[in-house]
Amino acid sequence: MKERAQRWFEELRDRICAAFEAIEEEGRGGPAGRFERKAWKRPPEDGSDAGGGEMSIMRGRVFEKVGVNVSTVYGRFAPEFARTVPGAQEDPRFWASGISVVAHMRNPFAPAAHMNTRHIVTARSWFGGGADLTPTAAPDAQDTAAFHGALKAACDRSDPEYYRKFKQWCDEYFYLPHRGEARGAGGIFFDWLESGDWEKDFAFAQAVGMAFLDIYPQIIRRRMDMPFGEADRLKQLERRGRYVEFNLLYDRGTQFGLKTGGNAEAILMSLPPEARWP
Amino acid sequence: MKERAQRWFEELRDRICAAFEAIEEEGRGGPAGRFERKAWKRPPEDGSDAGGGEMSIMRGRVFEKVGVNVSTVYGRFAPEFARTVPGAQEDPRFWASGISVVAHMRNPFAPAAHMNTRHIVTARSWFGGGADLTPTAAPDAQDTAAFHGALKAACDRSDPEYYRKFKQWCDEYFYLPHRGEARGAGGIFFDWLESGDWEKDFAFAQAVGMAFLDIYPQIIRRRMDMPFGEADRLKQLERRGRYVEFNLLYDRGTQFGLKTGGNAEAILMSLPPEARWP
Repeated sequence: MKERAQRWFEELRDRICAAFEAIEEEGRGGPAGRFERKAWKRPPEDGSDAGGGEMSIMRGRVFEKVGVNVSTVYGRFAPEFARTVPGAQEDPRFWASGISVVAHMRNPFAPAAHMNTRHIVTARSWFGGGADLTPTAAPDAQDTAAFHGALKAACDRSDPEYYRKFKQWCDEYFYLPHRGEARGAGGIFFDWLESGDWEKDFAFAQAVGMAFLDIYPQIIRRRMDMPFGEADRLKQLERRGRYVEFNLLYDRGTQFGLKTGGNAEAILMSLPPEARWP
Repeated sequence: MKERAQRWFEELRDRICAAFEAIEEEGRGGPAGRFERKAWKRPPEDGSDAGGGEMSIMRGRVFEKVGVNVSTVYGRFAPEFARTVPGAQEDPRFWASGISVVAHMRNPFAPAAHMNTRHIVTARSWFGGGADLTPTAAPDAQDTAAFHGALKAACDRSDPEYYRKFKQWCDEYFYLPHRGEARGAGGIFFDWLESGDWEKDFAFAQAVGMAFLDIYPQIIRRRMDMPFGEADRLKQLERRGRYVEFNLLYDRGTQFGLKTGGNAEAILMSLPPEARWP
């Protein structure tokens, strides 16, 4: 099951990178971008193999900066952290694999997006993840409806309650309390998904990835060539400032990763190429 | 004593703003900047007066963005926070006044700088603060020596041990562990300064502010008209990304302020006008 999950995350990475490179080919202005890959090893606590990952990053003419990370890491949680993880209280060994995508677009009318799915195994075993859309100029009702519609369809195939629950979780999670603002147009967020039917949960995680792969390129193709001006670009850079605030102040993965010796380059690939606090 | 401290912070604010506006007058390209002031009230827990502050911000031709905040706030600490504050364990009432300056310069060869001094009164009473210099192109030995020299002279007039201790504290505080990097060229950092001689401690806090007011304009005048190119600007914007990382991930004041309902606009005035994560 671990192997199947890991293979899936890597296959999804390949498909997303190919889909994004195809969009780059259709873009205008400057050369089309290509993903560059870079593998990293997780520093082991005791000299043993601790896993690692592979970053794929593309700086292009449609995608200003997009990172697609896969990683599969294993070992033992530090005692203070093990206490907070389901199934790790008595046995701190863990295995975790996942994919994480963050795309920042050149065109201010093309929304940024994030998608992540992961499988964690301790004495228990669960899936987590989500996807959300972040407009950087004006939010667009058609984009928002299309993005949520694709995620809802993926949710509904697994459980009629998932979309309502996971949409709300997303709204609560991607919120900047110091600004009184949502990060963007929402999406879904889920964690500790362990229904008792591993095949069903794995199929759901796959469906979330496939829904993102289907709908986000559609949204980008609709937006990538829209005319925009300097004021739109400045608005985009200011919205990206909020994105930075969320990721560094509140995102659990970022905070945990950076403070426990994770790969800083991979974790911070989510930060936008340029941002403003005017 | 509270009144004298508050009056000093406001007087220092006036002097710093005047000194920075004088530099703007000497600048080139575009109109000279002027500080804009904006007062804010701290939302009281119970409807009573809880103090507030005044932001001064200037966007100019030499100073790309500089904020000078003064605030004087009072009330009762939340119980979980009171436990962590000297003198507040039994009586959660507090009074706090201070000044905070963060300057981000247009010229990449003109270093950014931060200076802050504050006076806190609970059942105890102490001063805290510091100043540090952040080169954004190449660090310059002359700037670093001048900045440290001015702070050392201020320290030495109070106590021959202060500079060594407070420089080390600064090096430890302004450090990004996930990057393995210092934030900049250092300076001094001190807190909970309560020697038993209030006049001496107040004089030291004043001396730190005066040293900053003396030396930082000298450094800026030396650097503000240096020729620079696009590569220098990109380097500057990348270094500013590190500044954002430090302030949002590690700075105690930022984290505490934002998570406890502080004035987000005043707290985040420290963020650079533009930054990059290429």
